[in-house]
Amino acid sequence: MADPPVAQALPACGLVAVLGRGVVPADTPILRADDLGVLRGDGVFETLHVRGGTPWLLDAHLDRMARSAVRLDLDLPDREALAGLAGTVCAHWPAATEGALRLVCTRGAEGGGPVTTFARLAPIPGPVAAARRTGVAVATATLGITTGVRAEAPWLLGGVKAISYAVNMASQRWAVGRGFDDVLWVSADGYALEAPTSTLVWLAGEVLCTVPAADTGVLPGTTADWLLDRAPALGWRAEERMVRPVELVDADGVWLTSSVRGAAPVRALDGVALPPSPHTAPIQQALGHPV
Amino acid sequence: MADPPVAQALPACGLVAVLGRGVVPADTPILRADDLGVLRGDGVFETLHVRGGTPWLLDAHLDRMARSAVRLDLDLPDREALAGLAGTVCAHWPAATEGALRLVCTRGAEGGGPVTTFARLAPIPGPVAAARRTGVAVATATLGITTGVRAEAPWLLGGVKAISYAVNMASQRWAVGRGFDDVLWVSADGYALEAPTSTLVWLAGEVLCTVPAADTGVLPGTTADWLLDRAPALGWRAEERMVRPVELVDADGVWLTSSVRGAAPVRALDGVALPPSPHTAPIQQALGHPV
Repeated sequence: MADPPVAQALPACGLVAVLGRGVVPADTPILRADDLGVLRGDGVFETLHVRGGTPWLLDAHLDRMARSAVRLDLDLPDREALAGLAGTVCAHWPAATEGALRLVCTRGAEGGGPVTTFARLAPIPGPVAAARRTGVAVATATLGITTGVRAEAPWLLGGVKAISYAVNMASQRWAVGRGFDDVLWVSADGYALEAPTSTLVWLAGEVLCTVPAADTGVLPGTTADWLLDRAPALGWRAEERMVRPVELVDADGVWLTSSVRGAAPVRALDGVALPPSPHTAPIQQALGHPV
Repeated sequence: MADPPVAQALPACGLVAVLGRGVVPADTPILRADDLGVLRGDGVFETLHVRGGTPWLLDAHLDRMARSAVRLDLDLPDREALAGLAGTVCAHWPAATEGALRLVCTRGAEGGGPVTTFARLAPIPGPVAAARRTGVAVATATLGITTGVRAEAPWLLGGVKAISYAVNMASQRWAVGRGFDDVLWVSADGYALEAPTSTLVWLAGEVLCTVPAADTGVLPGTTADWLLDRAPALGWRAEERMVRPVELVDADGVWLTSSVRGAAPVRALDGVALPPSPHTAPIQQALGHPV
């Protein structure tokens, strides 16, 4: 995907709107020093793909954001307000340029202030979009936990998209430092879980698979769920399955799916090359991200 | 500890200083919407006890902050700048009032901006100080990981004080919702690890103990380390040990130690009352927090 000229005119820090204030210059400070979002990583977020000037799968993202907020006992603004905030930044965005929209809601000031809610819409970094074509070389790395523990221990926040992503970011830095592009987290008992910012999807014969979120505490992937819902139209069945990384080497296609990157084909896993899958093209066509 | 009148005059949101800007009104927004501190919980922090107008154990905290930053590959400002920032807010604080000082350094703007570094000094909430006298009723809760995994998997950020505390906060909320005051995290293999915002210390006969940080990935406790260094003056030896929660019931004293709370005696563990320890008083006297 070439950067359309109009994207060049946008500031790299994107467009920002704050609930209750509307659009603000993107370099305006909007969070106080006592905001629990920055003191504790305490808040929820969603990242959406903006195409044709509109956030894709907005309903599914707002559903998940609401579920995350319930799990964090967070007083999320109502759905209409969040959708309106997304609409506000999108209204100022060039429709021909794809974008990454973040909706963020922190717990607000430590003393018990109202939540802080904002939207930020920014260009998609070149390497992120390029991964749709080039694929990603992935390293497995343990997440340290057994597969089922998060389903039994709600305080571990399995399935919650909180802004506490330090381990996610450190995992990716660790991988990049070793020449990989991304990580596939594996449970202590050896099952593939998810990637730090994307969901594992693979094709096993005629079955399009992902990891069961409810049993494992992985984040239910909005893009993955959408894709599995459309498996019949692609000629497949859909199924949630547990899988060991070694089994993925023999799959008929392995992808890391996320809102912004779409479906990035896994081209190598722990240094073992995976042959290019003929099914990447129809999957990416279905998803509709520019390739 | 009664709230001294002077504390009433301080704004609840405390005093704030930003590196490069000095003191700003505490309700001034200082972080942009694209700051990775709030987008990813990506940054490090320290919390210090301010007494007599001075941050206690400043060197130890700056040491730990520097170690955290190395592990996160974060470009932390130099030690003198951080110490100066702490001094700036303390200079505006009434010496007779104890305070909680946070030093925070986030990765800054997503596009690769400089780090965002600030200090916030605030009054200590009444219930926090009260726990020194009343003690805490603690529930054990699994952290889901085996004891040793973080020592082998640096991307899990064992021992790093990152601002991604959503699980810490959720663990405490879970406990409070069930009538407890705090949580003691336990490993998947049944060993006590640490509390979400404090370090486990216990007395076994004449040995003052804490959990070995290097082997388990718990945060090395600044207060606990200081206390164990002074064990001989209190008539004890010091030792790092693994312990199972059930063994703590027979200890000669169990405390959750942290910079701000000092040593809070554990008065019950999973509903089993622990007898008040005669050793709480000398420990608290050594630490010097107002009781």
